Amino acid sequence: MYDLIIIGGGPAGLTAGIYAKRARLNTLLVEKGALGGQIALTDVIENYPGFPSISGWGLMEKFEQHARGFDLEIKVLEVLDIEDKGKYKLVKTSEGDLETKTVIIATGAKPRYIGAPGEKEFIGKGVSYCATCDGPFFKAQDVLVVGGGDTAVKEAIYLSKLAKKVYIAHRRDQLRAEKIIQEKALSTPNIEMLWSHIIEEIKGGQGVEKAVLKNLKDNSAKEINVTGVFIFIGVNPNTDFAHVEKDKNGYIITNQSMETSIKGIFAAGDCRVTPLRQVSTAVGDGAIAAFIAEKYVEEV
Amino acid sequence: MYDLIIIGGGPAGLTAGIYAKRARLNTLLVEKGALGGQIALTDVIENYPGFPSISGWGLMEKFEQHARGFDLEIKVLEVLDIEDKGKYKLVKTSEGDLETKTVIIATGAKPRYIGAPGEKEFIGKGVSYCATCDGPFFKAQDVLVVGGGDTAVKEAIYLSKLAKKVYIAHRRDQLRAEKIIQEKALSTPNIEMLWSHIIEEIKGGQGVEKAVLKNLKDNSAKEINVTGVFIFIGVNPNTDFAHVEKDKNGYIITNQSMETSIKGIFAAGDCRVTPLRQVSTAVGDGAIAAFIAEKYVEEV
Repeated sequence: MYDLIIIGGGPAGLTAGIYAKRARLNTLLVEKGALGGQIALTDVIENYPGFPSISGWGLMEKFEQHARGFDLEIKVLEVLDIEDKGKYKLVKTSEGDLETKTVIIATGAKPRYIGAPGEKEFIGKGVSYCATCDGPFFKAQDVLVVGGGDTAVKEAIYLSKLAKKVYIAHRRDQLRAEKIIQEKALSTPNIEMLWSHIIEEIKGGQGVEKAVLKNLKDNSAKEINVTGVFIFIGVNPNTDFAHVEKDKNGYIITNQSMETSIKGIFAAGDCRVTPLRQVSTAVGDGAIAAFIAEKYVEEV
Repeated sequence: MYDLIIIGGGPAGLTAGIYAKRARLNTLLVEKGALGGQIALTDVIENYPGFPSISGWGLMEKFEQHARGFDLEIKVLEVLDIEDKGKYKLVKTSEGDLETKTVIIATGAKPRYIGAPGEKEFIGKGVSYCATCDGPFFKAQDVLVVGGGDTAVKEAIYLSKLAKKVYIAHRRDQLRAEKIIQEKALSTPNIEMLWSHIIEEIKGGQGVEKAVLKNLKDNSAKEINVTGVFIFIGVNPNTDFAHVEKDKNGYIITNQSMETSIKGIFAAGDCRVTPLRQVSTAVGDGAIAAFIAEKYVEEV
Protein backbone atom coordinates (compact mmCIF):
# COMPACT_ATOMS: atom_id res chain seq x y z
CA MET A 1 0.00 0.00 0.00
CA TYR A 2 1.52 3.30 -1.11
CA ASP A 3 0.78 6.58 0.65
CA LEU A 4 0.77 8.34 -2.71
CA ILE A 5 0.84 7.45 -6.39
CA ILE A 6 1.67 10.36 -8.70
CA ILE A 7 0.49 9.80 -12.27
CA GLY A 8 2.68 11.70 -14.74
CA GLY A 9 6.34 12.70 -14.77
CA GLY A 10 6.24 16.29 -16.03
CA PRO A 11 7.01 19.39 -13.94
CA ALA A 12 3.89 19.04 -11.74
CA GLY A 13 4.45 15.34 -11.04
CA LEU A 14 8.18 15.65 -10.35
CA THR A 15 7.60 18.61 -8.01
CA ALA A 16 4.92 16.64 -6.17
CA GLY A 17 7.49 13.82 -5.90
CA ILE A 18 10.08 16.14 -4.34
CA TYR A 19 7.62 17.44 -1.77
CA ALA A 20 6.12 14.01 -1.01
CA LYS A 21 9.52 12.39 -0.42
CA ARG A 22 10.62 15.27 1.83
CA ALA A 23 7.41 14.68 3.79
CA ARG A 24 8.44 10.99 4.05
CA LEU A 25 5.43 9.69 2.11
CA ASN A 26 5.84 6.22 0.61
CA THR A 27 5.51 7.49 -2.95
CA LEU A 28 5.48 6.01 -6.46
CA LEU A 29 5.57 8.13 -9.60
CA VAL A 30 4.31 6.43 -12.75
CA GLU A 31 4.78 7.66 -16.30
CA LYS A 32 3.67 5.94 -19.49
CA GLY A 33 6.35 7.50 -21.71
CA ALA A 34 9.47 9.55 -21.12
CA LEU A 35 9.84 11.78 -18.06
CA GLY A 36 9.53 15.53 -18.52
CA GLY A 37 6.13 15.90 -20.16
CA GLN A 38 5.37 18.33 -22.96
CA ILE A 39 7.96 20.88 -21.83
CA ALA A 40 10.77 18.40 -22.52
CA LEU A 41 9.90 18.81 -26.23
CA THR A 42 10.29 22.60 -26.09
CA ASP A 43 13.39 24.15 -27.59
CA VAL A 44 14.08 26.90 -25.06
CA ILE A 45 12.33 28.03 -21.90
CA GLU A 46 13.10 31.52 -20.60
CA ASN A 47 10.40 32.11 -18.01
CA TYR A 48 11.02 29.57 -15.26
CA PRO A 49 12.52 31.86 -12.60
CA GLY A 50 16.14 31.13 -11.80
CA PHE A 51 16.99 29.85 -15.28
CA PRO A 52 17.16 32.77 -17.76
CA SER A 53 17.50 30.37 -20.70
CA ILE A 54 17.52 26.56 -20.73
CA SER A 55 16.19 23.81 -23.00
CA GLY A 56 12.97 22.16 -21.88
CA TRP A 57 14.79 18.86 -21.88
CA GLY A 58 17.68 20.24 -19.80
CA LEU A 59 15.33 21.72 -17.23
CA MET A 60 13.39 18.48 -16.90
CA GLU A 61 16.65 16.57 -16.43
CA LYS A 62 17.36 18.86 -13.47
CA PHE A 63 13.87 18.25 -12.06
CA GLU A 64 14.35 14.49 -12.44
CA GLN A 65 17.77 14.55 -10.74
CA HIS A 66 16.32 16.67 -7.95
CA ALA A 67 13.49 14.16 -7.38
CA ARG A 68 15.77 11.13 -7.64
CA GLY A 69 18.04 12.77 -5.05
CA PHE A 70 15.20 12.12 -2.58
CA ASP A 71 14.98 8.46 -3.80
CA LEU A 72 11.65 8.92 -5.57
CA GLU A 73 10.51 5.55 -6.97
CA ILE A 74 9.61 5.85 -10.68
CA LYS A 75 7.96 3.19 -12.88
CA VAL A 76 7.07 3.20 -16.56
CA LEU A 77 3.48 2.01 -16.94
CA GLU A 78 0.09 3.28 -18.06
CA VAL A 79 -2.81 3.92 -15.70
CA LEU A 80 -6.10 2.56 -17.05
CA ASP A 81 -8.50 3.35 -14.21
CA ILE A 82 -8.69 4.53 -10.60
CA GLU A 83 -11.27 2.87 -8.33
CA ASP A 84 -12.22 4.75 -5.20
CA LYS A 85 -12.37 2.19 -2.36
CA GLY A 86 -12.99 4.82 0.32
CA LYS A 87 -9.92 4.71 2.58
CA TYR A 88 -7.74 3.65 -0.32
CA LYS A 89 -7.67 3.80 -4.12
CA LEU A 90 -7.12 0.88 -6.49
CA VAL A 91 -4.99 2.08 -9.42
CA LYS A 92 -5.44 -0.28 -12.39
CA THR A 93 -2.41 -0.20 -14.66
CA SER A 94 -0.90 -1.89 -17.69
CA GLU A 95 1.30 -3.79 -15.21
CA GLY A 96 -1.40 -4.84 -12.73
CA ASP A 97 -3.22 -3.28 -9.78
CA LEU A 98 -1.66 -0.96 -7.20
CA GLU A 99 -3.07 0.17 -3.85
CA THR A 100 -2.54 3.67 -2.50
CA LYS A 101 -4.03 6.02 0.04
CA THR A 102 -3.89 9.03 -2.29
CA VAL A 103 -3.41 9.84 -5.98
CA ILE A 104 -2.12 12.97 -7.68
CA ILE A 105 -3.12 13.18 -11.35
CA ALA A 106 -0.46 15.17 -13.20
CA THR A 107 -0.86 13.71 -16.67
CA GLY A 108 -0.70 16.94 -18.62
CA ALA A 109 -2.18 17.27 -22.07
CA LYS A 110 -1.56 16.13 -25.65
CA PRO A 111 -1.67 18.01 -28.99
CA ARG A 112 -5.00 18.65 -30.70
CA TYR A 113 -5.49 17.56 -34.34
CA ILE A 114 -6.93 19.77 -37.08
CA GLY A 115 -8.92 16.97 -38.67
CA ALA A 116 -8.05 18.06 -42.23
CA PRO A 117 -7.74 15.46 -45.01
CA GLY A 118 -4.14 14.30 -45.27
CA GLU A 119 -3.27 15.22 -41.67
CA LYS A 120 -3.22 11.73 -40.18
CA GLU A 121 -1.96 10.16 -43.43
CA PHE A 122 1.18 12.32 -43.38
CA ILE A 123 2.02 12.14 -39.67
CA GLY A 124 5.73 11.34 -39.57
CA LYS A 125 5.95 12.08 -43.30
CA GLY A 126 5.83 15.85 -43.01
CA VAL A 127 3.07 16.48 -40.48
CA SER A 128 4.45 17.10 -37.00
CA TYR A 129 3.38 18.36 -33.56
CA CYS A 130 6.91 18.95 -32.26
CA ALA A 131 9.38 21.29 -33.95
CA THR A 132 12.23 20.35 -31.62
CA CYS A 133 11.78 16.69 -32.56
CA ASP A 134 11.28 17.07 -36.31
CA GLY A 135 12.55 20.51 -37.28
CA PRO A 136 16.05 19.36 -38.27
CA PHE A 137 14.52 17.17 -41.03
CA PHE A 138 13.37 20.30 -42.90
CA LYS A 139 16.65 22.16 -43.31
CA ALA A 140 16.52 24.62 -46.22
CA GLN A 141 12.93 23.62 -47.03
CA ASP A 142 9.66 25.57 -46.79
CA VAL A 143 7.33 24.70 -43.92
CA LEU A 144 3.95 25.77 -42.61
CA VAL A 145 3.10 26.38 -38.96
CA VAL A 146 -0.58 26.32 -38.02
CA GLY A 147 -1.73 28.26 -34.95
CA GLY A 148 -1.33 31.66 -33.28
CA GLY A 149 -0.60 30.98 -29.61
CA ASP A 150 2.68 30.99 -27.67
CA THR A 151 3.71 27.52 -28.73
CA ALA A 152 2.93 28.03 -32.42
CA VAL A 153 4.88 31.27 -32.67
CA LYS A 154 7.83 30.09 -30.55
CA GLU A 155 8.15 26.96 -32.62
CA ALA A 156 7.90 29.02 -35.84
CA ILE A 157 10.84 31.12 -34.64
CA TYR A 158 12.78 27.98 -33.86
CA LEU A 159 11.97 26.55 -37.30
CA SER A 160 13.00 29.80 -39.02
CA LYS A 161 16.58 29.04 -37.98
CA LEU A 162 16.45 25.70 -39.80
CA ALA A 163 14.01 26.03 -42.68
CA LYS A 164 14.34 28.29 -45.72
CA LYS A 165 10.92 29.83 -45.16
CA VAL A 166 8.25 29.49 -42.48
CA TYR A 167 4.61 30.38 -43.12
CA ILE A 168 2.34 30.86 -40.12
CA ALA A 169 -1.34 30.29 -40.91
CA HIS A 170 -3.65 31.62 -38.23
CA ARG A 171 -7.45 31.67 -38.31
CA ARG A 172 -7.61 35.14 -36.74
CA ASP A 173 -6.13 38.44 -37.90
CA GLN A 174 -3.93 38.79 -34.82
CA LEU A 175 -1.77 36.48 -32.74
CA ARG A 176 -2.54 35.34 -29.20
CA ALA A 177 1.13 34.78 -28.34
CA GLU A 178 3.08 36.83 -25.75
CA LYS A 179 4.01 40.20 -27.29
CA ILE A 180 7.76 39.63 -26.96
CA ILE A 181 7.36 36.45 -29.01
CA GLN A 182 5.07 38.13 -31.55
CA GLU A 183 7.56 40.92 -32.15
CA LYS A 184 10.37 38.43 -32.63
CA ALA A 185 8.32 36.45 -35.17
CA LEU A 186 7.09 39.48 -37.09
CA SER A 187 10.64 40.83 -37.39
CA THR A 188 12.08 37.54 -38.62
CA PRO A 189 12.71 37.95 -42.38
CA ASN A 190 11.93 34.35 -43.38
CA ILE A 191 8.63 34.15 -41.47
CA GLU A 192 5.51 35.08 -43.48
CA MET A 193 2.15 35.56 -41.81
CA LEU A 194 -0.97 34.18 -43.47
CA TRP A 195 -3.65 35.98 -41.44
CA SER A 196 -7.24 34.67 -41.35
CA HIS A 197 -6.28 31.42 -43.04
CA ILE A 198 -7.28 27.89 -42.12
CA ILE A 199 -5.85 24.68 -43.47
CA GLU A 200 -8.23 22.65 -45.59
CA GLU A 201 -6.08 19.81 -46.91
CA ILE A 202 -2.56 18.44 -46.87
CA LYS A 203 -1.43 16.92 -50.17
CA GLY A 204 1.59 14.95 -51.33
CA GLY A 205 3.03 11.66 -52.48
CA GLN A 206 5.67 9.92 -50.38
CA GLY A 207 5.67 12.98 -48.16
CA VAL A 208 3.92 16.33 -47.82
CA GLU A 209 4.16 18.53 -50.93
CA LYS A 210 1.40 21.13 -50.62
CA ALA A 211 -1.01 22.67 -48.13
CA VAL A 212 -4.41 23.96 -49.26
CA LEU A 213 -5.52 27.02 -47.31
CA LYS A 214 -8.77 28.97 -47.16
CA ASN A 215 -8.90 32.72 -46.53
CA LEU A 216 -11.72 33.27 -44.02
CA LYS A 217 -12.14 36.93 -45.06
CA ASP A 218 -13.01 36.32 -48.73
CA ASN A 219 -13.38 32.50 -48.83
CA SER A 220 -10.66 32.27 -51.48
CA ALA A 221 -8.45 29.17 -51.59
CA LYS A 222 -4.72 29.00 -52.12
CA GLU A 223 -2.06 26.32 -52.29
CA ILE A 224 1.44 26.71 -50.92
CA ASN A 225 4.36 24.42 -51.60
CA VAL A 226 5.69 23.09 -48.30
CA THR A 227 7.30 19.81 -47.26
CA GLY A 228 6.47 20.20 -43.57
CA VAL A 229 3.30 21.13 -41.67
CA PHE A 230 3.70 21.82 -37.96
CA ILE A 231 0.44 21.98 -36.06
CA PHE A 232 0.12 23.85 -32.74
CA ILE A 233 -3.57 24.55 -32.24
CA GLY A 234 -3.84 23.50 -28.64
CA VAL A 235 -3.81 20.49 -26.44
CA ASN A 236 -6.26 18.07 -24.86
CA PRO A 237 -5.86 16.91 -21.27
CA ASN A 238 -4.84 13.29 -20.69
CA THR A 239 -7.68 12.56 -18.30
CA ASP A 240 -9.84 9.90 -19.96
CA PHE A 241 -8.98 7.32 -17.28
CA ALA A 242 -10.02 9.60 -14.39
CA HIS A 243 -13.65 9.64 -13.27
CA VAL A 244 -13.51 12.90 -11.33
CA GLU A 245 -15.41 16.09 -12.14
CA LYS A 246 -14.14 17.78 -15.32
CA ASP A 247 -15.06 20.72 -17.53
CA LYS A 248 -16.42 20.32 -21.07
CA ASN A 249 -12.90 20.04 -22.51
CA GLY A 250 -11.94 17.26 -20.11
CA TYR A 251 -9.79 19.37 -17.76
CA ILE A 252 -10.10 18.29 -14.11
CA ILE A 253 -11.85 20.73 -11.79
CA THR A 254 -10.08 21.39 -8.48
CA ASN A 255 -10.17 23.93 -5.69
CA GLN A 256 -7.09 25.95 -4.66
CA SER A 257 -5.88 22.95 -2.60
CA MET A 258 -5.81 20.80 -5.80
CA GLU A 259 -8.62 18.61 -4.40
CA THR A 260 -10.84 16.97 -7.03
CA SER A 261 -14.44 15.82 -6.58
CA ILE A 262 -13.14 12.56 -5.01
CA LYS A 263 -11.46 12.69 -1.59
CA GLY A 264 -7.85 11.57 -1.70
CA ILE A 265 -7.55 12.23 -5.44
CA PHE A 266 -5.74 15.45 -6.40
CA ALA A 267 -4.85 17.04 -9.74
CA ALA A 268 -1.92 19.31 -10.62
CA GLY A 269 -0.53 21.02 -13.71
CA ASP A 270 -1.80 21.18 -17.28
CA CYS A 271 -4.50 18.51 -16.82
CA ARG A 272 -6.58 20.68 -14.48
CA VAL A 273 -8.70 23.77 -15.04
CA THR A 274 -6.28 26.64 -14.45
CA PRO A 275 -5.85 30.11 -15.94
CA LEU A 276 -2.28 29.44 -17.13
CA ARG A 277 -0.26 26.37 -18.11
CA GLN A 278 3.47 26.89 -17.53
CA VAL A 279 6.33 25.17 -15.73
CA SER A 280 6.02 27.91 -13.06
CA THR A 281 2.38 27.11 -12.40
CA ALA A 282 2.84 23.32 -12.60
CA VAL A 283 5.50 23.60 -9.90
CA GLY A 284 3.15 25.53 -7.61
CA ASP A 285 0.36 23.02 -8.21
CA GLY A 286 2.61 20.01 -7.57
CA ALA A 287 3.89 21.41 -4.27
CA ILE A 288 0.37 22.13 -3.01
CA ALA A 289 -1.02 18.76 -4.15
CA ALA A 290 1.71 16.83 -2.31
CA PHE A 291 1.35 18.99 0.81
CA ILE A 292 -2.42 18.47 0.96
CA ALA A 293 -2.04 14.75 0.12
CA GLU A 294 0.30 14.39 3.11
CA LYS A 295 -2.27 16.01 5.40
CA TYR A 296 -4.92 13.64 4.04
CA VAL A 297 -2.70 10.58 4.65
CA GLU A 298 -2.13 11.66 8.27
CA GLU A 299 -5.86 12.06 8.84
CA VAL A 300 -7.17 8.85 7.22
CA MET B 1 0.87 55.88 -16.39
CA TYR B 2 2.23 52.39 -15.79
CA ASP B 3 0.48 49.28 -17.08
CA LEU B 4 1.45 47.43 -13.90
CA ILE B 5 2.97 48.22 -10.52
CA ILE B 6 4.18 45.17 -8.59
CA ILE B 7 4.46 45.80 -4.86
CA GLY B 8 7.10 43.55 -3.29
CA GLY B 9 10.36 42.07 -4.58
CA GLY B 10 10.24 38.50 -3.27
CA PRO B 11 9.77 35.37 -5.42
CA ALA B 12 6.15 36.20 -6.34
CA GLY B 13 6.91 39.81 -7.29
CA LEU B 14 10.05 39.01 -9.28
CA THR B 15 8.26 36.22 -11.16
CA ALA B 16 5.39 38.58 -11.95
CA GLY B 17 8.04 41.02 -13.21
CA ILE B 18 9.56 38.42 -15.54
CA TYR B 19 6.16 37.53 -17.02
CA ALA B 20 4.99 41.14 -17.27
CA LYS B 21 8.12 42.30 -19.09
CA ARG B 22 7.93 39.35 -21.51
CA ALA B 23 4.33 40.42 -22.18
CA ARG B 24 5.68 43.95 -22.90
CA LEU B 25 3.80 45.59 -20.04
CA ASN B 26 5.19 48.95 -18.89
CA THR B 27 6.02 47.64 -15.42
CA LEU B 28 7.46 49.03 -12.19
CA LEU B 29 8.40 46.83 -9.23
CA VAL B 30 8.61 48.63 -5.88
CA GLU B 31 10.16 47.23 -2.71
CA LYS B 32 10.54 49.01 0.60
CA GLY B 33 13.60 47.07 1.74
CA ALA B 34 15.97 44.60 0.12
CA LEU B 35 14.89 42.43 -2.79
CA GLY B 36 14.29 38.74 -2.15
CA GLY B 37 11.70 38.80 0.60
CA GLN B 38 11.66 36.41 3.56
CA ILE B 39 13.29 33.58 1.63
CA ALA B 40 16.47 35.64 1.19
CA LEU B 41 16.97 35.25 4.97
CA THR B 42 16.77 31.44 4.79
CA ASP B 43 19.97 29.45 5.11
CA VAL B 44 19.28 26.69 2.58
CA ILE B 45 16.36 25.87 0.29
CA GLU B 46 16.15 22.36 -1.11
CA ASN B 47 12.63 22.20 -2.52
CA TYR B 48 12.54 24.71 -5.37
CA PRO B 49 12.64 22.32 -8.34
CA GLY B 50 15.79 22.56 -10.41
CA PHE B 51 18.01 23.64 -7.51
CA PRO B 52 18.68 20.65 -5.20
CA SER B 53 20.39 22.91 -2.65
CA ILE B 54 20.94 26.67 -2.72
CA SER B 55 20.92 29.51 -0.20
CA GLY B 56 17.77 31.61 -0.12
CA TRP B 57 19.91 34.64 -0.84
CA GLY B 58 21.61 32.92 -3.80
CA LEU B 59 18.31 31.85 -5.31
CA MET B 60 16.83 35.33 -5.00
CA GLU B 61 19.94 36.79 -6.66
CA LYS B 62 19.21 34.51 -9.62
CA PHE B 63 15.57 35.63 -9.67
CA GLU B 64 16.66 39.27 -9.60
CA GLN B 65 19.18 38.78 -12.42
CA HIS B 66 16.53 36.95 -14.44
CA ALA B 67 14.06 39.84 -14.01
CA ARG B 68 16.68 42.53 -14.66
CA GLY B 69 17.60 40.65 -17.85
CA PHE B 70 14.18 41.75 -19.14
CA ASP B 71 14.92 45.37 -18.02
CA LEU B 72 12.43 45.31 -15.16
CA GLU B 73 12.35 48.78 -13.54
CA ILE B 74 12.82 48.51 -9.76
CA LYS B 75 12.46 51.32 -7.17
CA VAL B 76 12.97 51.34 -3.41
CA LEU B 77 9.96 52.99 -1.79
CA GLU B 78 7.07 52.18 0.52
CA VAL B 79 3.46 51.98 -0.63
CA LEU B 80 1.09 53.74 1.79
CA ASP B 81 -2.25 53.34 0.03
CA ILE B 82 -3.90 52.30 -3.22
CA GLU B 83 -6.86 54.34 -4.46
CA ASP B 84 -9.15 52.69 -6.99
CA LYS B 85 -9.96 55.31 -9.65
CA GLY B 86 -11.85 52.87 -11.85
CA LYS B 87 -9.85 52.59 -15.06
CA TYR B 88 -6.63 53.28 -13.18
CA LYS B 89 -5.22 53.05 -9.67
CA LEU B 90 -3.45 55.80 -7.73
CA VAL B 91 -0.59 54.26 -5.74
CA LYS B 92 0.40 56.59 -2.88
CA THR B 93 4.00 56.05 -1.84
CA SER B 94 6.73 57.45 0.38
CA GLU B 95 8.11 59.10 -2.77
CA GLY B 96 4.86 60.54 -4.14
CA ASP B 97 1.90 59.30 -6.19
CA LEU B 98 2.08 56.87 -9.10
CA GLU B 99 -0.59 56.03 -11.67
CA THR B 100 -1.06 52.53 -13.03
CA LYS B 101 -3.68 50.46 -14.79
CA THR B 102 -3.10 47.40 -12.59
CA VAL B 103 -1.43 46.45 -9.30
CA ILE B 104 -0.05 43.14 -8.10
CA ILE B 105 0.34 42.97 -4.32
CA ALA B 106 3.19 40.59 -3.51
CA THR B 107 4.27 42.00 -0.17
CA GLY B 108 4.70 38.72 1.68
CA ALA B 109 4.55 38.53 5.44
CA LYS B 110 6.58 39.47 8.52
CA PRO B 111 7.43 37.55 11.72
CA ARG B 112 4.91 37.29 14.55
CA TYR B 113 5.94 38.34 18.07
CA ILE B 114 5.37 36.28 21.22
CA GLY B 115 4.48 39.28 23.38
CA ALA B 116 6.45 37.99 26.39
CA PRO B 117 8.11 40.45 28.78
CA GLY B 118 11.67 41.14 27.66
CA GLU B 119 11.03 40.20 24.03
CA LYS B 120 10.97 43.69 22.53
CA GLU B 121 13.55 45.00 25.05
CA PHE B 122 16.12 42.47 23.89
CA ILE B 123 15.54 42.61 20.12
CA GLY B 124 19.03 42.92 18.64
CA LYS B 125 20.53 42.06 22.06
CA GLY B 126 19.82 38.35 21.93
CA VAL B 127 16.25 38.15 20.61
CA SER B 128 16.13 37.43 16.88
CA TYR B 129 13.71 36.41 14.12
CA CYS B 130 16.40 35.38 11.63
CA ALA B 131 19.00 32.70 12.35
CA THR B 132 20.87 33.32 9.10
CA CYS B 133 21.31 36.97 10.04
CA ASP B 134 22.19 36.60 13.72
CA GLY B 135 23.27 32.97 14.24
CA PRO B 136 26.99 33.64 13.83
CA PHE B 137 26.91 35.94 16.91
CA PHE B 138 26.12 32.94 19.13
CA LYS B 139 29.04 30.65 18.36
CA ALA B 140 29.68 28.15 21.18
CA GLN B 141 26.82 29.62 23.22
CA ASP B 142 23.46 28.12 24.27
CA VAL B 143 20.36 29.35 22.45
CA LEU B 144 16.63 28.77 22.51
CA VAL B 145 14.42 28.36 19.45
CA VAL B 146 10.69 28.94 19.93
CA GLY B 147 8.24 27.23 17.55
CA GLY B 148 7.53 23.87 15.95
CA GLY B 149 6.93 24.51 12.26
CA ASP B 150 9.21 24.12 9.25
CA THR B 151 11.02 27.40 9.74
CA ALA B 152 11.62 26.92 13.49
CA VAL B 153 13.06 23.43 13.09
CA LYS B 154 15.13 24.26 10.00
CA GLU B 155 16.61 27.27 11.71
CA ALA B 156 17.31 25.19 14.84
CA ILE B 157 19.29 22.73 12.69
CA TYR B 158 21.19 25.62 11.18
CA LEU B 159 21.92 27.07 14.63
CA SER B 160 23.08 23.66 15.92
CA LYS B 161 26.08 23.96 13.61
CA LEU B 162 27.08 27.24 15.25
CA ALA B 163 25.86 27.19 18.84
CA LYS B 164 27.01 24.83 21.61
CA LYS B 165 23.46 23.77 22.40
CA VAL B 166 20.05 24.52 20.89
CA TYR B 167 16.83 24.10 22.87
CA ILE B 168 13.56 23.99 20.93
CA ALA B 169 10.56 25.03 23.02
CA HIS B 170 7.25 24.08 21.41
CA ARG B 171 3.79 24.50 22.90
CA ARG B 172 2.60 21.14 21.59
CA ASP B 173 3.96 17.63 22.21
CA GLN B 174 4.77 17.09 18.55
CA LEU B 175 6.29 19.15 15.76
CA ARG B 176 4.41 20.47 12.73
CA ALA B 177 7.54 20.56 10.55
CA GLU B 178 8.07 18.33 7.48
CA LYS B 179 9.06 14.82 8.65
CA ILE B 180 12.45 14.90 6.94
CA ILE B 181 13.28 18.05 8.90
CA GLN B 182 11.89 16.63 12.17
CA GLU B 183 14.05 13.52 11.86
CA LYS B 184 17.13 15.61 11.20
CA ALA B 185 16.46 17.78 14.25
CA LEU B 186 15.65 14.90 16.59
CA SER B 187 18.85 13.08 15.58
CA THR B 188 21.07 16.13 16.09
CA PRO B 189 23.00 15.56 19.36
CA ASN B 190 23.11 19.19 20.50
CA ILE B 191 19.40 19.87 19.94
CA GLU B 192 17.17 19.30 22.98
CA MET B 193 13.38 19.33 22.68
CA LEU B 194 11.33 21.05 25.36
CA TRP B 195 7.88 19.67 24.52
CA SER B 196 4.74 21.43 25.72
CA HIS B 197 6.65 24.51 26.87
CA ILE B 198 5.84 28.15 26.29
CA ILE B 199 8.09 31.11 26.92
CA GLU B 200 6.96 33.40 29.74
CA GLU B 201 9.79 35.88 30.07
CA ILE B 202 13.18 36.77 28.68
CA LYS B 203 15.66 38.06 31.30
CA GLY B 204 19.10 39.60 31.17
CA GLY B 205 21.29 42.65 31.67
CA GLN B 206 23.18 44.06 28.69
CA GLY B 207 21.94 41.10 26.69
CA VAL B 208 19.77 38.00 27.10
CA GLU B 209 20.85 35.70 29.97
CA LYS B 210 17.86 33.51 30.76
CA ALA B 211 14.53 32.35 29.41
CA VAL B 212 11.66 31.49 31.74
CA LEU B 213 9.51 28.65 30.42
CA LYS B 214 6.22 27.14 31.56
CA ASN B 215 5.38 23.47 31.11
CA LEU B 216 1.78 23.33 29.87
CA LYS B 217 1.31 19.73 31.07
CA ASP B 218 1.96 20.36 34.79
CA ASN B 219 2.16 24.18 34.92
CA SER B 220 5.69 24.01 36.35
CA ALA B 221 8.16 26.79 35.53
CA LYS B 222 11.80 26.45 34.64
CA GLU B 223 14.65 28.76 33.75
CA ILE B 224 17.30 27.95 31.18
CA ASN B 225 20.54 29.85 30.66
CA VAL B 226 20.69 31.07 27.07
CA THR B 227 22.22 34.10 25.42
CA GLY B 228 20.03 33.94 22.32
CA VAL B 229 16.29 33.49 21.76
CA PHE B 230 15.20 32.83 18.18
CA ILE B 231 11.45 33.16 17.62
CA PHE B 232 9.70 31.41 14.70
CA ILE B 233 6.02 31.23 15.60
CA GLY B 234 4.59 32.40 12.33
CA VAL B 235 4.20 35.43 10.20
CA ASN B 236 1.68 38.18 9.53
CA PRO B 237 0.90 39.38 6.01
CA ASN B 238 2.13 42.85 5.01
CA THR B 239 -1.26 44.00 3.79
CA ASP B 240 -2.29 46.91 6.05
CA PHE B 241 -2.13 49.41 3.18
CA ALA B 242 -4.44 47.37 0.93
CA HIS B 243 -8.19 47.84 1.20
CA VAL B 244 -9.22 44.66 -0.58
CA GLU B 245 -11.10 41.74 0.95
CA LYS B 246 -9.00 39.81 3.51
CA ASP B 247 -9.45 36.95 5.96
CA LYS B 248 -9.37 37.47 9.74
CA ASN B 249 -5.56 37.22 9.79
CA GLY B 250 -5.16 39.89 7.14
CA TYR B 251 -4.33 37.59 4.23
CA ILE B 252 -5.79 38.78 0.92
CA ILE B 253 -8.59 36.67 -0.54
CA THR B 254 -8.23 35.85 -4.26
CA ASN B 255 -9.69 33.43 -6.76
CA GLN B 256 -7.50 31.03 -8.78
CA SER B 257 -6.72 33.89 -11.21
CA MET B 258 -5.20 35.93 -8.32
CA GLU B 259 -8.00 38.50 -8.65
CA THR B 260 -8.88 40.37 -5.45
CA SER B 261 -12.19 42.00 -4.60
CA ILE B 262 -11.13 45.10 -6.61
CA LYS B 263 -10.84 44.82 -10.41
CA GLY B 264 -7.31 45.44 -11.65
CA ILE B 265 -5.75 44.65 -8.25
CA PHE B 266 -4.20 41.21 -7.93
CA ALA B 267 -2.37 39.43 -5.09
CA ALA B 268 0.34 36.75 -5.28
CA GLY B 269 2.51 34.78 -2.87
CA ASP B 270 2.62 34.71 0.94
CA CYS B 271 0.33 37.74 1.41
CA ARG B 272 -2.73 35.94 0.04
CA VAL B 273 -4.91 33.16 1.41
CA THR B 274 -3.29 29.99 0.07
CA PRO B 275 -2.84 26.46 1.38
CA LEU B 276 0.98 26.59 1.19
CA ARG B 277 3.62 29.33 1.28
CA GLN B 278 6.79 28.33 -0.58
CA VAL B 279 8.99 29.70 -3.36
CA SER B 280 7.36 27.10 -5.64
CA THR B 281 3.88 28.40 -4.97
CA ALA B 282 4.89 32.09 -5.04
CA VAL B 283 6.32 31.52 -8.52
CA GLY B 284 3.07 29.98 -9.76
CA ASP B 285 1.06 32.84 -8.24
CA GLY B 286 3.32 35.52 -9.73
CA ALA B 287 3.10 34.04 -13.23
CA ILE B 288 -0.69 33.84 -13.11
CA ALA B 289 -1.11 37.34 -11.63
CA ALA B 290 1.00 38.94 -14.40
CA PHE B 291 -0.75 36.92 -17.11
CA ILE B 292 -4.21 37.95 -15.90
CA ALA B 293 -3.05 41.56 -15.35
CA GLU B 294 -1.92 41.67 -18.99
CA LYS B 295 -5.34 40.45 -20.16
CA TYR B 296 -6.96 43.13 -18.00
CA VAL B 297 -4.74 45.87 -19.46
CA GLU B 298 -5.67 44.80 -22.99
CA GLU B 299 -9.37 44.91 -22.17
CA VAL B 300 -9.53 48.22 -20.26
